[in-house]
Amino acid sequence: MKFTIQKDRLVESVQSVLKAVSSRTTIPILTGIKIEASTEGISLTGSDSDISIESFIPCIEEENENVTIHQAGSIVLQARFFSEIVRKLPMSIVEIEVQNQHETIIRSGKAEFSLNGLDASEYPLLPQLEEHHGFQIPTDLLKNMIRQTVFAVSTSETRPILTGVNWKIGNNELFCTATDSHRLAYRKAALELRDEESYNVVIPGKSLTELSKILDDSRELVDIVVTDTQVLFKTKNILFFSRLLDGTYPDTSRLIPQESNTDFIVNTKEFLQAIDRASLLAREGRNNVVKLSANPDKIVEISSNSPEIGKVIESVVSESFDGEELNISFSPKYMLDALKVLEGTEIHISFSGPMRPFLIRTPNDESIVQLILPVRTY
Amino acid sequence: MKFTIQKDRLVESVQSVLKAVSSRTTIPILTGIKIEASTEGISLTGSDSDISIESFIPCIEEENENVTIHQAGSIVLQARFFSEIVRKLPMSIVEIEVQNQHETIIRSGKAEFSLNGLDASEYPLLPQLEEHHGFQIPTDLLKNMIRQTVFAVSTSETRPILTGVNWKIGNNELFCTATDSHRLAYRKAALELRDEESYNVVIPGKSLTELSKILDDSRELVDIVVTDTQVLFKTKNILFFSRLLDGTYPDTSRLIPQESNTDFIVNTKEFLQAIDRASLLAREGRNNVVKLSANPDKIVEISSNSPEIGKVIESVVSESFDGEELNISFSPKYMLDALKVLEGTEIHISFSGPMRPFLIRTPNDESIVQLILPVRTY
Repeated sequence: MKFTIQKDRLVESVQSVLKAVSSRTTIPILTGIKIEASTEGISLTGSDSDISIESFIPCIEEENENVTIHQAGSIVLQARFFSEIVRKLPMSIVEIEVQNQHETIIRSGKAEFSLNGLDASEYPLLPQLEEHHGFQIPTDLLKNMIRQTVFAVSTSETRPILTGVNWKIGNNELFCTATDSHRLAYRKAALELRDEESYNVVIPGKSLTELSKILDDSRELVDIVVTDTQVLFKTKNILFFSRLLDGTYPDTSRLIPQESNTDFIVNTKEFLQAIDRASLLAREGRNNVVKLSANPDKIVEISSNSPEIGKVIESVVSESFDGEELNISFSPKYMLDALKVLEGTEIHISFSGPMRPFLIRTPNDESIVQLILPVRTY
Repeated sequence: MKFTIQKDRLVESVQSVLKAVSSRTTIPILTGIKIEASTEGISLTGSDSDISIESFIPCIEEENENVTIHQAGSIVLQARFFSEIVRKLPMSIVEIEVQNQHETIIRSGKAEFSLNGLDASEYPLLPQLEEHHGFQIPTDLLKNMIRQTVFAVSTSETRPILTGVNWKIGNNELFCTATDSHRLAYRKAALELRDEESYNVVIPGKSLTELSKILDDSRELVDIVVTDTQVLFKTKNILFFSRLLDGTYPDTSRLIPQESNTDFIVNTKEFLQAIDRASLLAREGRNNVVKLSANPDKIVEISSNSPEIGKVIESVVSESFDGEELNISFSPKYMLDALKVLEGTEIHISFSGPMRPFLIRTPNDESIVQLILPVRTY
């Protein structure tokens, strides 16, 4: 294998595939990045066996020459060293050449590295998915749907299925749901499906978080291919594979209250900042809760109390109020997480009692719902 | 105590004094910030008993009203909470009021915090220094002298005196020296001393690092007062006290070679980047060293070798070379630290043999010297 390549393109691709490489793997070859040179270009692969990322650099792209292949071939290089080395190379062109015994020479200007490579034939093969099963979604919408749900997955392995986000696809709609059983985030969007396909899968939260870091904010379509055990996200030059979680996702639809006794609308930023201030003392308290009192005078009072440190009380004027007076306590972290992903200057909160889950939404927008279970303190 | 204050000024002062507050102190009241309101303004104090910082906010400054005092007094508030609270307050004006039992109310807009304060009379007093002993130095020069020496102090408590920087003041000069016994940094500057004063003190490296963070890059003069056990740095609104280290600083003058056998001048940036690349493999090696070979052909070769990972070799063309061929090994970290604080596009390195300390300087600048002890590998 021997090729020359634009350093910037190589650095960018290495950064992408590096997101799948874990230093804590039990399979030594997975601490490396696989490099393959073919007549079309260079492909780099990183994997931790849960996530695999392949980034392709075509020889010619938009009339720019990225890569010149002198000899096809492949090698696996230690990911950590290879990524640091290419980033620090002195010139804009890099030459990479495999010599005997997998010894790999990396040249740029007057710097010459020689790294001990590994045999690429020992690197695990990526899953082969049948690409006629799948659908498309714009990159920016996909990123938003991930951001608005993935924070609510469980971080505990007690119920592994809850560490993933449930994706239900059917009837030209995509429903994403995440819950850690104390709060729930729900987002839906219209899709154009190619046929009568329907899927119900659970994608690990970690995979979606890493995917999101690689995606840009363009409107370009991402191809998504779903099988029983794997999901593949395909952009122009990147293949992102993730395994799916085994098991049945709980039915969360009955958790979402259909009626409410108390509803108010407040300015998102004012309310968020008040909760943020109250959380300063809440996290020292025994329960880590803030209290909220709302009444028909349109005053929403937020308070928190930590016997050792002190207390805080603050009021926000609601823009509208309907229903009964209410006193409720909840985790300020869950509330802040939910508020941060809702768009719009106003939010609508609907309660159906001090011990019932409550809903946080953007007024007149049914596509996203955040739900929080209160904490019993009264 | 009761006053109103501009939030921005309060936040800035709290950030300054917070640098002296440690959460790991064994004296509980030192986890707090002392606030004193007098007719002139507000002073805030933080201390970990090694470093004490007092920041003063005058009522009127450049015709702006910073503070309105309603009632003089003092209180100590938990530093961590107080700093986070003031940063997050909603309005640009803050009111602080001590009520009975040290309960302190912080109001801003519709937010009201109530914190449990501590009795300010239990807070340790700052040292009283006689201010007629001392000298002055421009802020930007002081910052530079700290930056160019403090990185070389020892981080090990084996010889506590080496954790500080030696300041020798006399004959209208200030000499700063730091060494961890593997490398040494030396910087001098001309001073205008008020009389025939001379001092020889050791200031903890940590104190100088924290001081440096508080200083701006202005040319305003800093007043420095030195006693047997304390040093005080005085800017317009800040008093920064540090204790001095006990003991005698070693005589380092005999360490610095007066003659050399091999001298070369190279471009600083090229040389630094070559060392940086070589260090990528060096730190995995047994010795963590890079090798340097210089010869009369003006080629400086830098190399490093880690049997498991690979090797690197690179050459830099020197701009001038005098003396004998040389092969030497050293820690790339020490070299990078030294190169980063030297100013100018070129550096001059002088060797007096493969096992003798070598000097790194800016050509034609005697004010700053960096010295590194080589590592035996040949």
